[in-house]
Amino acid sequence: MHTAQIIQPELILNTQICKENIRQMAGKALASGTLFRPHFKTHQSRGVASWFREVGVTAITVSSLRMAAWFIAAGWKDITVAMPFNLREVSFLEELLPKARIHILIDSVEAVRGLDRRLSMPVGAFLKMDCGYGRSGVGIDDGMAIDRILTAIHQSEHLQFRGFLTHSGHTYHATSREEIVKISLQVAQKMKRLKKRWFRLFPDAIISIGDTPGCSLMDDFSGIDEVRPGNFVFYDLMQENLGSCDRSRIAVAVAAPVLGIYPERNTVIVHCGGVHLSKESIQNSQGVKLFGQVVWLTDSGWQWPAEEIFVTALSQEHGIIQANPGLLRAIQHGALLGIIPVHSCLTVRCFSEYLTTTGERLKIFRP
Amino acid sequence: MHTAQIIQPELILNTQICKENIRQMAGKALASGTLFRPHFKTHQSRGVASWFREVGVTAITVSSLRMAAWFIAAGWKDITVAMPFNLREVSFLEELLPKARIHILIDSVEAVRGLDRRLSMPVGAFLKMDCGYGRSGVGIDDGMAIDRILTAIHQSEHLQFRGFLTHSGHTYHATSREEIVKISLQVAQKMKRLKKRWFRLFPDAIISIGDTPGCSLMDDFSGIDEVRPGNFVFYDLMQENLGSCDRSRIAVAVAAPVLGIYPERNTVIVHCGGVHLSKESIQNSQGVKLFGQVVWLTDSGWQWPAEEIFVTALSQEHGIIQANPGLLRAIQHGALLGIIPVHSCLTVRCFSEYLTTTGERLKIFRP
Repeated sequence: MHTAQIIQPELILNTQICKENIRQMAGKALASGTLFRPHFKTHQSRGVASWFREVGVTAITVSSLRMAAWFIAAGWKDITVAMPFNLREVSFLEELLPKARIHILIDSVEAVRGLDRRLSMPVGAFLKMDCGYGRSGVGIDDGMAIDRILTAIHQSEHLQFRGFLTHSGHTYHATSREEIVKISLQVAQKMKRLKKRWFRLFPDAIISIGDTPGCSLMDDFSGIDEVRPGNFVFYDLMQENLGSCDRSRIAVAVAAPVLGIYPERNTVIVHCGGVHLSKESIQNSQGVKLFGQVVWLTDSGWQWPAEEIFVTALSQEHGIIQANPGLLRAIQHGALLGIIPVHSCLTVRCFSEYLTTTGERLKIFRP
Repeated sequence: MHTAQIIQPELILNTQICKENIRQMAGKALASGTLFRPHFKTHQSRGVASWFREVGVTAITVSSLRMAAWFIAAGWKDITVAMPFNLREVSFLEELLPKARIHILIDSVEAVRGLDRRLSMPVGAFLKMDCGYGRSGVGIDDGMAIDRILTAIHQSEHLQFRGFLTHSGHTYHATSREEIVKISLQVAQKMKRLKKRWFRLFPDAIISIGDTPGCSLMDDFSGIDEVRPGNFVFYDLMQENLGSCDRSRIAVAVAAPVLGIYPERNTVIVHCGGVHLSKESIQNSQGVKLFGQVVWLTDSGWQWPAEEIFVTALSQEHGIIQANPGLLRAIQHGALLGIIPVHSCLTVRCFSEYLTTTGERLKIFRP
């Protein structure tokens, strides 16, 4: 790419790092005999999706039925919609079912019955399990609830049981790599036990697990039928902070024009605000909120400054960088800085396209 | 609108409330003899823009040159781009200058000189003042810096000085309505003094002030040449929390399908996450983060429940509502709730269009 040609905020995608992230995760799944069903909610791009195809991926995960439709139109035919199913979308689902193998998520008897009443054709369903995250799903230890829902699925006319699915989002609250691995192994253990318990009624049921911290730090996925990580494709500051990755694995940055340099306030203002980064933040050890980290953009990617420099406040369009003397010396009005995002999934949603380090423009899904 | 036809998250715009917000602010400006130059970064819609035209608005404010171009294409011809000017965009600016009267913001000698060197045609410029917010702009009390920059503008070949502009973003940190009014009056006072001081050199220079809390709570704008509030068009929970408005003035809500009901956790999950509301939050008196407030959607708008119910956590696509017995009794899987956003400007950026209470679909600018 030519940074000299960038005049407005752009989302830069480092092709080489991204492809290497894909290769590594696909390789680990293959070595474990585990189906790799990556979550496409992070990149939301048909172009990046094609890089997954190159390593043999044919099954994917998305976070809405609209996103499923968008990838189906690009030729993807095996899709899990990883949200408790929205009963208002049954007709939309039925439009898509003839075009692809779609699997939906269920976590209550009411949803099973509501769906079964409205459906006129079969659809695959996973039971969404809560293994400690506490967002959605049936408690993994709530045998009675599991029993009730599986019985309802078994009795339903249109739902075909695919297996047990969980998202261990509580790895995001872990304070060490060891804790992430420990949580992940415990979750895998519980899920395997569940599968075994229901083997007689559902011999083909699988277990599906997926969160980037766990999938990045587990040595292998043995005994897990399917993994669904998404964020690993780009990683971000939050993942680096958690220990899921080294910063060299982060594959996206926002190119941000410098709008103002204020040595008296020790700040630099860039055109890179809440509408570019999202308002997701992490905190440093002093409790200061960080919204992004500054890198030096080059035509082939970016370099990390010797001293860490952060975006510490965001308005709608402005990012405020807490500067240091090195930064103040290095830049002029109209310079271009790179800003590594805290949460790449949300940053991607702020843009309509990527500019790749190899100079391509890749469209991003817009619902 | 027909809520029964809504199947996915939609951004609902209450036409009646919005038009009344516009009418009130325009009326106050008119009564004060002040030019009303509303900031369009909140609604980013040509449809809503046309409602401003109905009350006589012809001059507007935007937050990027791309947004300016989009409104120019819809016939707007007098536009202030309220960000310190990005020197990388000079050619883009020159493409737009023949089509509209554009005013840009400057806050350093370097920017004046950099611009003047690159420009080949005249452009109006405001001096961006910092009256205590501390984001961008020249300190209002820094007489020497003001002197240097105004001299540079005066000597420049292409910059035509329009006046002094400030955004009193520090009203957002005020703890009472009285404090907001006090800050606003002090800022107005300082700006008036500045204008007077430079009257001989720049007799046509104006002062321009604009923030929703201040413009909402000041009784009138006497002595202020121009006001540029933006958020007031919709307001939101943050503004209500600040005291800028009553909740009856909030004009947008996200329609959110219910995906899961969890009496055992006292939560409800809706399809309304960080990609719909943004991750902006306010805190309640117990320090709990709030990302949105639940209302009952109707075909003509919404009603506020007797007890306050909030979204207390967000994932990418999920919103987690801290429920109460009334909510748990009132809804079923597939129900539709309204979620009032914390920050309407950022929520608008998450959507491609509004669905109005009168059943229209209005496109939202996508950069």
